[in-house]
Amino acid sequence: MPAPMDALQKVDDNLEAGLTRLFALLRIPSISTQTSHAKDCRAAAEWLKAELSSLGFATTIHETPGHPIVVARREGPAGAPHVLFYGHYDVQPVDPVSLWKSDPFDPQLVTNPDGTKEIRARGAADDKGQVMTFVEACRALIESNGELPVGVTIVIEGEEESGGENLLPFLKAHSEELKADLALICDTGMLDAKTPAITTMLRGMVGEEVTIIAADRDLHSGMFGNAARNPIQVLCDIISALRDGATGRITLNGFYDGVPELPDSVREQWREIGPTDEDSLGAVGLRWPAGEQGYSALEQTWCRPSCEINGISGGYEEDGFKTVLPARAMAKISFRLVGEQDPEAIRASFRAHVRARVPSDCTVEFKPHGGSRASVVPSDMLQLASALTALTEEWGTQATVIGCGGSIPVVGEVKEALGLDTLLIGFGLDDDRIHSPNEKYSLTSFHKGTRSWVRVLMALAQ
Amino acid sequence: MPAPMDALQKVDDNLEAGLTRLFALLRIPSISTQTSHAKDCRAAAEWLKAELSSLGFATTIHETPGHPIVVARREGPAGAPHVLFYGHYDVQPVDPVSLWKSDPFDPQLVTNPDGTKEIRARGAADDKGQVMTFVEACRALIESNGELPVGVTIVIEGEEESGGENLLPFLKAHSEELKADLALICDTGMLDAKTPAITTMLRGMVGEEVTIIAADRDLHSGMFGNAARNPIQVLCDIISALRDGATGRITLNGFYDGVPELPDSVREQWREIGPTDEDSLGAVGLRWPAGEQGYSALEQTWCRPSCEINGISGGYEEDGFKTVLPARAMAKISFRLVGEQDPEAIRASFRAHVRARVPSDCTVEFKPHGGSRASVVPSDMLQLASALTALTEEWGTQATVIGCGGSIPVVGEVKEALGLDTLLIGFGLDDDRIHSPNEKYSLTSFHKGTRSWVRVLMALAQ
Repeated sequence: MPAPMDALQKVDDNLEAGLTRLFALLRIPSISTQTSHAKDCRAAAEWLKAELSSLGFATTIHETPGHPIVVARREGPAGAPHVLFYGHYDVQPVDPVSLWKSDPFDPQLVTNPDGTKEIRARGAADDKGQVMTFVEACRALIESNGELPVGVTIVIEGEEESGGENLLPFLKAHSEELKADLALICDTGMLDAKTPAITTMLRGMVGEEVTIIAADRDLHSGMFGNAARNPIQVLCDIISALRDGATGRITLNGFYDGVPELPDSVREQWREIGPTDEDSLGAVGLRWPAGEQGYSALEQTWCRPSCEINGISGGYEEDGFKTVLPARAMAKISFRLVGEQDPEAIRASFRAHVRARVPSDCTVEFKPHGGSRASVVPSDMLQLASALTALTEEWGTQATVIGCGGSIPVVGEVKEALGLDTLLIGFGLDDDRIHSPNEKYSLTSFHKGTRSWVRVLMALAQ
Repeated sequence: MPAPMDALQKVDDNLEAGLTRLFALLRIPSISTQTSHAKDCRAAAEWLKAELSSLGFATTIHETPGHPIVVARREGPAGAPHVLFYGHYDVQPVDPVSLWKSDPFDPQLVTNPDGTKEIRARGAADDKGQVMTFVEACRALIESNGELPVGVTIVIEGEEESGGENLLPFLKAHSEELKADLALICDTGMLDAKTPAITTMLRGMVGEEVTIIAADRDLHSGMFGNAARNPIQVLCDIISALRDGATGRITLNGFYDGVPELPDSVREQWREIGPTDEDSLGAVGLRWPAGEQGYSALEQTWCRPSCEINGISGGYEEDGFKTVLPARAMAKISFRLVGEQDPEAIRASFRAHVRARVPSDCTVEFKPHGGSRASVVPSDMLQLASALTALTEEWGTQATVIGCGGSIPVVGEVKEALGLDTLLIGFGLDDDRIHSPNEKYSLTSFHKGTRSWVRVLMALAQ
């Protein structure tokens, strides 16, 4: 296996042509939630099929009940590991269009006042630009070395932005042909513009909608106030009791079972490099972390479980006043999970917490929503170390492992269907405005992202 | 002054003609909230003016910025007291019309399976039927005796159902010509179909809309959950702390200042005659009083102060789930007041309670709503005893004093503008469906109600 220098040079040489290819993909308005764009989703799949076929991948378009899935496979040298790369070609809607500085599907290379350049288009960062860093890396490796250092299967779906239910059944149905040693996903971000990162902790989630029902009709609060049970009061009591006000800890029985403490080494690294509480909360008008005492805002969102009230509703909510004593009140509550927390155990514990607080002449209804475990890459995983080294070499700054407060369901689905661990390596930045007007992807993310994948794939071959 | 027998006989003789007169008034669709019915409101005022003029009242229609107010005055014998009667000619809207068994403005005299009769029409009970009991009583007294036993001023307004702001300024501007010794209102109910009642306790009210604001935008609960303050959680903590879960008492500082204990005699009477907890709560699908321990549901609504959450709103409330961590959450909260509780002191205490619980990087906004003291007729008031005796004689069942959980603002306005105490004497029943389709007024309420006023006016002359 030759040194990567040839392939890295090839990336640099190909940059302009690579941008042209990315722009062609960005021009396809593949908005998956809007049925009027179904043909555009198919066009994006066809474009990727042609592109990957031209690089010598055996490429198929798989039909699903929704948008098609592109699968492309190219073998590596005998005995080399095989990796499964996942990405998505669909994009978010573009409303409100009036806030865009240019047509969201007419990609622009914009030069900022500080001289940096960025690609502006819907999907530039999420996820077409990130997908193409991997494809362009494969091109550079193939063009410079004649082959890939590892076997590569690329799966690119079209329903990531529309909560598509079709990926997991597809993975399960094709688990034999999708066999690999490791999964790679390029749909996350760097710590900051200089510091590459691998996301090793993703929180799981379990959601519940809970409705408290008291009287069999709305009542007049003058006629019944005091004597008739108020379901909003009951709901507020239940919610208030979920969190210990003094410590910020969630009070559900067994809630912290399976929650690991952050290794000191990682905690110290985060405190050194990560944003301070002032940085992360100050950006949204807040100052002090609200959750568990003794943890920074970063730690609270990256590696601690949480409980959030996502919505609440009851009685009269419009302008003015109505002295109604409502018959029901509803809340949507979600828990973000870490480590080995069991979503169904937590759902059961939550329901027990509620039932213990529902007065005997009220009833309660639950509607479950979601239920996924946290994903954690073991910090001693060999490929993690290799990939971190490769990233550090490319960026000249020590690569770091980070957490992500959100959930990326595909990580769990890949694990469930294929038994694979995933390395989440991405080059997005916090200000990429994904899902918002004027989405962008930094030219540096695209260029050095492509170079990073060359190095990572070479490193994984070792 | 002759015995009332002549006048009572006259009421009986006039019943059919009186019904005809009431039906004429009920045919006028004087819905005050709908501007398209403004001319009908004026027609109702004109009808009353003609009716009262024909009875020898000096009658005027006073213009207001809204619907007109009818004022009619007829002097009593020299040295007799003068009473001010208040009623309203406007009615509630009739939607949904499809649920009415007959046209709401085509009054019907309906015979029930048990042989009792009722008047079905919008306004039959609230308040045209009740108003006409008083007018017909005046007619019978005048026709039989040639004069009224007391001086009478009748004020009938047209904005009671539309929260009209014009009555209080009118009362203040005309306080000289409206001078009287006592106010009478016929807009309340009996204890039950057999037991006449005078409502001597009306709760006051103070309302607050409170909004908690945390971050300067809605956040993703995955990215910020735990670290960023959740305003719904803050609001639930505040609401939950308003009531002591063990005792059911409101925790605001000074909340019970000025709250009188119910005299044992009244409590015993209520326990004997009043509906049980099963009766009052069972009718709406509940069983146990939710408020202060040691008080029956009746006592809790008639003579104890309360705190109700009338509405709450925040985050995502529609179908499905959205993992939003909202920027703000809002609740509408009202307190019903009794005795000498001071609405502004309670508002201040509530705001202090909230401010003490708002974390330092959240802000709070308050919107005041209403603020009226409770109205209480002293139980040793001479005219109260006379009126109770008169009612007892008419109905053959001991008349009782009752409370009312709601608020009737005109009682406070009459006290404020004219310095008058009010006797609330009405003949409505719990099943009159006021504000609802198929509103009715029992023929017995109309007939014996008219006879009751004859007796009460004679008694007040003593």
